[in-house]
Amino acid sequence: MSQTDQNTGLTSKRIESLADGIFAIAMTLLVLDLQLDGPVGNIILSQFLANQWQRFLNYLLSFFLLAIFWILHHQQFHVIKRTDRRHLWINVLMLMFVALIPFSASVVGDFFGQTLAHWVFDLNLFVVGLLFYFNWAYATNQYRLVEKDLSIDLIARGKKRALVLPIVTCLAFVLSFYIPPWSGLAYLLIPVIFAKLKA
Amino acid sequence: MSQTDQNTGLTSKRIESLADGIFAIAMTLLVLDLQLDGPVGNIILSQFLANQWQRFLNYLLSFFLLAIFWILHHQQFHVIKRTDRRHLWINVLMLMFVALIPFSASVVGDFFGQTLAHWVFDLNLFVVGLLFYFNWAYATNQYRLVEKDLSIDLIARGKKRALVLPIVTCLAFVLSFYIPPWSGLAYLLIPVIFAKLKA
Amino acid sequence: MSQTDQNTGLTSKRIESLADGIFAIAMTLLVLDLQLDGPVGNIILSQFLANQWQRFLNYLLSFFLLAIFWILHHQQFHVIKRTDRRHLWINVLMLMFVALIPFSASVVGDFFGQTLAHWVFDLNLFVVGLLFYFNWAYATNQYRLVEKDLSIDLIARGKKRALVLPIVTCLAFVLSFYIPPWSGLAYLLIPVIFAKLKA
Amino acid sequence: MSQTDQNTGLTSKRIESLADGIFAIAMTLLVLDLQLDGPVGNIILSQFLANQWQRFLNYLLSFFLLAIFWILHHQQFHVIKRTDRRHLWINVLMLMFVALIPFSASVVGDFFGQTLAHWVFDLNLFVVGLLFYFNWAYATNQYRLVEKDLSIDLIARGKKRALVLPIVTCLAFVLSFYIPPWSGLAYLLIPVIFAKLKA
Repeated sequence: MSQTDQNTGLTSKRIESLADGIFAIAMTLLVLDLQLDGPVGNIILSQFLANQWQRFLNYLLSFFLLAIFWILHHQQFHVIKRTDRRHLWINVLMLMFVALIPFSASVVGDFFGQTLAHWVFDLNLFVVGLLFYFNWAYATNQYRLVEKDLSIDLIARGKKRALVLPIVTCLAFVLSFYIPPWSGLAYLLIPVIFAKLKA
Repeated sequence: MSQTDQNTGLTSKRIESLADGIFAIAMTLLVLDLQLDGPVGNIILSQFLANQWQRFLNYLLSFFLLAIFWILHHQQFHVIKRTDRRHLWINVLMLMFVALIPFSASVVGDFFGQTLAHWVFDLNLFVVGLLFYFNWAYATNQYRLVEKDLSIDLIARGKKRALVLPIVTCLAFVLSFYIPPWSGLAYLLIPVIFAKLKA
Repeated sequence: MSQTDQNTGLTSKRIESLADGIFAIAMTLLVLDLQLDGPVGNIILSQFLANQWQRFLNYLLSFFLLAIFWILHHQQFHVIKRTDRRHLWINVLMLMFVALIPFSASVVGDFFGQTLAHWVFDLNLFVVGLLFYFNWAYATNQYRLVEKDLSIDLIARGKKRALVLPIVTCLAFVLSFYIPPWSGLAYLLIPVIFAKLKA
Repeated sequence: MSQTDQNTGLTSKRIESLADGIFAIAMTLLVLDLQLDGPVGNIILSQFLANQWQRFLNYLLSFFLLAIFWILHHQQFHVIKRTDRRHLWINVLMLMFVALIPFSASVVGDFFGQTLAHWVFDLNLFVVGLLFYFNWAYATNQYRLVEKDLSIDLIARGKKRALVLPIVTCLAFVLSFYIPPWSGLAYLLIPVIFAKLKA
């Protein structure tokens, strides 16, 4: 089903497989941010756990967002059958910023509630979201990397879906001016909007 | 064999593959908890190893439990042929708590013998176990994601098997009130009960 | 080719795939031991690199040994077509100790030249080697998990090959009494012996 | 398509799969170098981020180079259909140095602008590049591991392409004498040269 690009010898299947690896590892590395670094010393467990509460919510949010991107990735590659050099590099760039999410999440964890920290996180997600949009737009433009019989409706819906993430990110960005610790809640709109798009 | 969900473009095969990645990484990250963090300084090796003894048993136990979950996952997905949006999110939630196990294991390692630490670990496993139960119950309810010819007996046995983990976790939870350092031994009942269920 | 075990729903292929993940991660985590932990402070780079020399050799040796185990694993699973409950647990146990190698390697790195540190490493490899032997002996005994037409000669050679590792480990163990820093060189005998076995 | 080596039971497909894992993990581990190690203390976020700027560019560069190697790997294995014992070990050695890249990148990150640090990075890449060249030369020499009908032109182009990396590395090496912080820019020549080679 997946076709080999003559220049790079790469199939869209290969990109999916690299992406799967990077998503799985990024999701699992998130947990390192929760762990105690350095010796236990006089740390009291109940106090430590109380302090980890925000980091834990942050873990759940970041994992949830990575899962959304992972699903979106497979949704897009479900119809993208070929790849070419530019498409390959859009994807490499996208994975660069996907692999960066554990870092941005740790910045939020370390400096929770500071507007700047939430900006780093939002900016990271914004770039990922935008690259997902480009991935879809580039592949479907003039049926470049998809089958000719793909319905125009499906292409348009794919674009809308890919735009949800950058738009929600902008909302989170604005919220982090006023209520930084709660700005992450904006991301919970994503599944709501996705469900609306379906109807 | 595995069928593609029209909404998400995801197959049960894809979920298995993400799960495989997360299980392998979580299993391997457990080892980081054993390692010396910070410079060697004046640490005497024999003393360091003596102190690691509990962490080592803890490593073996956590790896063993992750392996049981991994086996259970494949047992369930051996008959689950399709996926849908809700099923997908049950699995994402499940993987969230699977990826959390290295953290919970490190809490036990850092605060071994404190009831609260063992609770964190037990609670984590309880949530994973419960989600495995939901995964099975949701997929098999009215043959939603399985073949119509699946025997009722096999469905019932799958439910029983999925309930072993939450129940044993409750036992470990109770034990950690009285004998926190030994409460983990409760988990060794799992293979015994599994063998009984077979007979 | 690979057949599904009725009890666990697992194929030998699945075990290979989990093993592939764990091997790749363990190989890559080895590098964390080289990295500077903690802030740079007044550390002088040339001095830091000079100190890392042993750790670097240690990295090469551990990676090389993991590669040998990875090759051996595929050699064994090339003919092992089925799995059963016991075989599954032999493999889980084996992977437990494979995933432990980055820890043992870090002990050698942190306490290089101390006999006890080299023992930890040797013991870890000894257990892995022994479990590889059991894996082969269990699978081939009375053609339990292999095809009936497998030549007796091939089975015997597989046993011999699997015994090389535990035996060389014993040699390294003895050497680490007298010349701990050089005891690791014993492992370089493995490819030599493997080449001999072939002839 | 991929053929099994009789001695090792390994196919070129298996090597690709191990390589995929190691590339994905190495790419994702790069991010650990950005993260704050140790407690937050009095660190001011804006200052922390300002200091991370170089590390961030370094992350992008290292990820980009790993992506190039990953693409090259699949380009080579697109025509390499078999493997043998020597070819296997060329690849293990190659992966050893691929997995080392997160370390070399962290050396540059920790000691940015020091000639010696950039040498470590350049040397690592030089070795990887050279091994990629050997991989191709060994496999295509007298059609050892490729199909007989592979065009001589394609073999020659593959060699040229594999030589780009070691040569650019030498340029970066020379540059790091004079302008260490900017020597990494040399690597941006790679896509330019690749595009030229195509024309």
